[in-house]
Amino acid sequence: MTVVDVETGDLYPTRVGDKPSLISRQDPVVWPSNESGPIDQRTLASYDEKGYLTVDGLLTPAEVQQFWQELMDLTNDAGVKADERTIVEKSSDEVRSIFEVHKISSAIGKLATDPRVLDRARQIVGSDVYIHQSRVNLMPGYRGTGFYWHSDFETWHAEDGMPRMRAVSMSIALTDNYPFNGGLMLMPGAHRTFVSCVGETPEDNYKASLKAQKIGVPDEDSITKLAAEHGIDQFTGSAGSALMFDSNSMHGSGNNITPFPRSNIFLVFNSVENTLQDPYGAAAPRPTFVADRAFVPVQR
Amino acid sequence: MTVVDVETGDLYPTRVGDKPSLISRQDPVVWPSNESGPIDQRTLASYDEKGYLTVDGLLTPAEVQQFWQELMDLTNDAGVKADERTIVEKSSDEVRSIFEVHKISSAIGKLATDPRVLDRARQIVGSDVYIHQSRVNLMPGYRGTGFYWHSDFETWHAEDGMPRMRAVSMSIALTDNYPFNGGLMLMPGAHRTFVSCVGETPEDNYKASLKAQKIGVPDEDSITKLAAEHGIDQFTGSAGSALMFDSNSMHGSGNNITPFPRSNIFLVFNSVENTLQDPYGAAAPRPTFVADRAFVPVQR
Repeated sequence: MTVVDVETGDLYPTRVGDKPSLISRQDPVVWPSNESGPIDQRTLASYDEKGYLTVDGLLTPAEVQQFWQELMDLTNDAGVKADERTIVEKSSDEVRSIFEVHKISSAIGKLATDPRVLDRARQIVGSDVYIHQSRVNLMPGYRGTGFYWHSDFETWHAEDGMPRMRAVSMSIALTDNYPFNGGLMLMPGAHRTFVSCVGETPEDNYKASLKAQKIGVPDEDSITKLAAEHGIDQFTGSAGSALMFDSNSMHGSGNNITPFPRSNIFLVFNSVENTLQDPYGAAAPRPTFVADRAFVPVQR
Repeated sequence: MTVVDVETGDLYPTRVGDKPSLISRQDPVVWPSNESGPIDQRTLASYDEKGYLTVDGLLTPAEVQQFWQELMDLTNDAGVKADERTIVEKSSDEVRSIFEVHKISSAIGKLATDPRVLDRARQIVGSDVYIHQSRVNLMPGYRGTGFYWHSDFETWHAEDGMPRMRAVSMSIALTDNYPFNGGLMLMPGAHRTFVSCVGETPEDNYKASLKAQKIGVPDEDSITKLAAEHGIDQFTGSAGSALMFDSNSMHGSGNNITPFPRSNIFLVFNSVENTLQDPYGAAAPRPTFVADRAFVPVQR
């Protein structure tokens, strides 16, 4: 079934009415390419099927240490904390995310060009890539709040104008991920279904939605259907391991009452052949620090 | 190290000042007895060490079905919902717990006398037992809220007047427990340490604390120490499996954003040789539906 909004040609209409719907994905998951890359065929096939893959030990322990120190330096920097690109936790005023961190930190900027990272992203989207969004996330122990189920693509499409599902996120763990400290849950296979969400995007929605999303949230019936069909996987692994997942993966996270914090570096690579248009479901695009519009290809 | 409050003879002083402290347990975990029971020696030794044990398939699938139906009947009963023994979820007005449920439901009352349940409890506390507290818990999908770290004994001692650590809780799962739907986390071995908490018990504290505990909450330094020493285990298992844990187990649970609800029958057996006294840290005892003061031995 192909659903196209005949007026706009939009393959993935969302936030356009009061009834949610499930739309079949119209895009490849692994895009064809003539180049090879570091991901082996079996892992790539599994990514195609599940919408995610993991890499153990992407960073060495020494590198984990180095990036952890970088993270501490950033969060202790008064200028960074005051920056509009820094998001603080609602309840505790602690730093929760720093956006566009690949431009703020040269070490993280360099990591995005590292073949271990970049070549994997290029291999999945089948072209040159640029960084659509980057951030570091810090979920504190004891009172870390999670994120409800969502597809990143839904927001990127509606609010940023990303046309197709041709982007991949990489989350690189700087702390150990247990099943119980608020790690990412994904529904394997649900990336083949687009959940069209109800509601209209309010002005400056991003300011609230980066803390807790209200618009672009899938309805419970859709989540129940997807969970019944696909089940739920959790990303667990040691510091230094990485998770790559499709832009339309259905994912979320619980809260964290354990003493073990959870931090990661988060890089979103979009294909240079999939650059942003006008938003499909919002009056104006979000600021460029959450959705870059310069589209500069990342080069080694 | 034995800490005794010389004025009161209290082995486990709590809520008496503004400084938390860690006190070594002064009681056996498995109490000596001349009787045998259904728990094998190896499992009993592990209970002694970790403060908990699990039983796969304590209930048959048919029994799970029967008790699930019983639970639905109870929550759909307007009289039960209006009863002061029924606790509703803060955010959604859904039934979260029904206390003294072994008196409300004859099926659950009978379950408490079943040798699979009763004989295990008797074996651990080394004597006849009575039901200190019973309840059913329902954590809904999507918006189930968890419970922060705590020791049940701390509350039972301070607010109910339970003298010693000679009680065991049994949680019988009526739904599958995954690592990600708000299941119980325990710190194996932490039952040998009593965390003396700060603060004073306000009047009628139980009304608020049954929804979200504020007093009798261990401080973060103590939780960090215990977690570093003991780590964290999670109780996972199919519907019908059971968890038995020591009254002083340090435990808690995260929230539940998955569509999978979590429900259980919860029975607390206290030794008839450990009956309640005046509260050790509150002006008046809690109502008998949360802490029975009749001390009637459970008989087959």
